[in-house]
Amino acid sequence: MGSQEVQLLNFLLSPVGRRVEWALKLKGVDFEYVEEDIFNKSNLLLEMNPVHKKVPVLVHGHKPIVESLIILEYIDEIWKQYPLLPLHPYERAHARFWANLADEKLALGSWVALMRSSGDEQEKRVKEVREVMEKLEEEILGKKFFGGDNIGYLDLVLGWIPCWLPVWEEVGSMQVLDTNKCPAISAWETNFLSHPVIKDCLPPRDKLVAYAHRRREQYFSI
Amino acid sequence: MGSQEVQLLNFLLSPVGRRVEWALKLKGVDFEYVEEDIFNKSNLLLEMNPVHKKVPVLVHGHKPIVESLIILEYIDEIWKQYPLLPLHPYERAHARFWANLADEKLALGSWVALMRSSGDEQEKRVKEVREVMEKLEEEILGKKFFGGDNIGYLDLVLGWIPCWLPVWEEVGSMQVLDTNKCPAISAWETNFLSHPVIKDCLPPRDKLVAYAHRRREQYFSI
Repeated sequence: MGSQEVQLLNFLLSPVGRRVEWALKLKGVDFEYVEEDIFNKSNLLLEMNPVHKKVPVLVHGHKPIVESLIILEYIDEIWKQYPLLPLHPYERAHARFWANLADEKLALGSWVALMRSSGDEQEKRVKEVREVMEKLEEEILGKKFFGGDNIGYLDLVLGWIPCWLPVWEEVGSMQVLDTNKCPAISAWETNFLSHPVIKDCLPPRDKLVAYAHRRREQYFSI
Repeated sequence: MGSQEVQLLNFLLSPVGRRVEWALKLKGVDFEYVEEDIFNKSNLLLEMNPVHKKVPVLVHGHKPIVESLIILEYIDEIWKQYPLLPLHPYERAHARFWANLADEKLALGSWVALMRSSGDEQEKRVKEVREVMEKLEEEILGKKFFGGDNIGYLDLVLGWIPCWLPVWEEVGSMQVLDTNKCPAISAWETNFLSHPVIKDCLPPRDKLVAYAHRRREQYFSI
């Protein structure tokens, strides 16, 4: 399969787009990376994702697949090497449950609001996030990865925790992940970041920091 | 497999719970139905779904599976007869996309708010829902069911449209589905409701109406 057949429309600093990039690389799928300017969207993006108009979009044989969790399922069904989801239906349901819960309760879109908040408001939201983190701590206890011995679907979904969260914590002057209460998540972060495929495909920290500052300032100016 | 092995914790008038009941019946899976009082939740429900505390919950071999879309995937993976999701990964991704879109944009939870709204506020929201309905119209055009010749995953997900929507329209004194613009959806509603499994497993309309009135009044009293 030539690289012309698989395109990934993405944005360098998108945490949900990175999931898809990691999945393709773990499976060794050859693809063309197309960087999108999310402030000036291309006709290709608007044509391929007319409903949501968002990255990531996987274009396979000229057909678009959108939404990062759906793309991960698609990739896992098309390219069987290096399975991402567990094989047993119960374990699959469990991984999907955690992926939805993490995306909903730790809602990525709400971090800009959190970075700009302060005092009681920030404290309340941080407490909610920590409650979910403590549940995740129980999930990873005694395992190298959420997927077991190998990085799987849920590891990719949660991959923003070691990459994006420290940046948001810095820019928002807050500490969200309590490492004393979540030592197993901390150990998982190290395992995740040192995986050969992941460590060669991390977002540039300086650009993440600059972008987080920009989003935070834009939020204040609304 | 005896009925003791499969339990469905449900609420008679839940549109998301009904999806699961239909799926089990289409596949001919023997199960024990357990009606929940959602205003006085049982210990079993709280134990089986400690995070969301909501129906439906499928309990299979004493293990709980929660969230209706995840349960449908699980059922389709465990019981292979009468496949619900299409076989091809692209078609599967397409069905999942529409299921998420419908649940998000036609958000079931927001109907109580819509029933109690009026004037410009109701008009604006009805317009948004109609836009999604018109996109769905294109999806069903030329097909008997969203799943093709047979009822599939997306039909079950959208099954609240012919059952719950007319009740909400009546109680909210509004017309949401414009049958002139959506003749194919109207035809699909007839096909869906006349399917032998579905027509024997519909929610009682009188109770739906009474419940919708109750919810609407509760909303006003907040």
